[in-house]
Amino acid sequence: MALKELAERECLRLLASRVVGRVAVVVDGEARVFPVNYLVDRDEIVFRTGEGTKLDAARSGALVTFEVDDSDPLYHTGWSVMVTGPLEAVTDPSELHRMQGLPVRAWGRDGQHIVRMPIAKVAGRQIERTSNGT
Amino acid sequence: MALKELAERECLRLLASRVVGRVAVVVDGEARVFPVNYLVDRDEIVFRTGEGTKLDAARSGALVTFEVDDSDPLYHTGWSVMVTGPLEAVTDPSELHRMQGLPVRAWGRDGQHIVRMPIAKVAGRQIERTSNGT
Repeated sequence: MALKELAERECLRLLASRVVGRVAVVVDGEARVFPVNYLVDRDEIVFRTGEGTKLDAARSGALVTFEVDDSDPLYHTGWSVMVTGPLEAVTDPSELHRMQGLPVRAWGRDGQHIVRMPIAKVAGRQIERTSNGT
Repeated sequence: MALKELAERECLRLLASRVVGRVAVVVDGEARVFPVNYLVDRDEIVFRTGEGTKLDAARSGALVTFEVDDSDPLYHTGWSVMVTGPLEAVTDPSELHRMQGLPVRAWGRDGQHIVRMPIAKVAGRQIERTSNGT
């Protein structure tokens, strides 16, 4: 069993194939991890959020990590993709108007704010079976 | 739609109900997030790992965040649990011997090292439907 690094193109394909990911925000040196419903819009990850850690991070343009994965422990298969980039709260009225029409809703409460994150740096890996099947 | 904070007991029940979670390690101020196969052993989260970021964190006793969640975007239900604590590489021979018998294997490559994390601080939340169903 080994881990195979995924090509950027494959990472982008996998990112676009899911609807729930996790955003990790570093607060006082500690990671806080939150599930989000998201979509890939152009070359950005977009999600909705309410007041809280994620929106604070977006308002300050903090660097965050977005992660999505899929696993089947029974068959020991799986992949994960990690994106790093600055989070940004969308405030431009015309952008906001367009993005409010995107089919994504908040994972939890209200989520009236739209935030986005450029897919600035992306990396992924996949569990690869060795030839002897172990 | 609102988010309801979960009681510690419910968080522990949910933690024990899953087999794949994510570990977030802060490296140079940036979160790195990795899926792991895990189990709850006594009052600790246990998983296997190979050489890399997670094992480095365990060897230095770094504070990490463990997260597990479940979502159904269609019905807009979901929960997430976050645990914070120091990661530790198990090196004591008798502990190691016992823990090597635990039914958990690495998410990816070799994973000959066993690491554990006390469930020192736990918090969770759940999407709660409001009475009008929105």
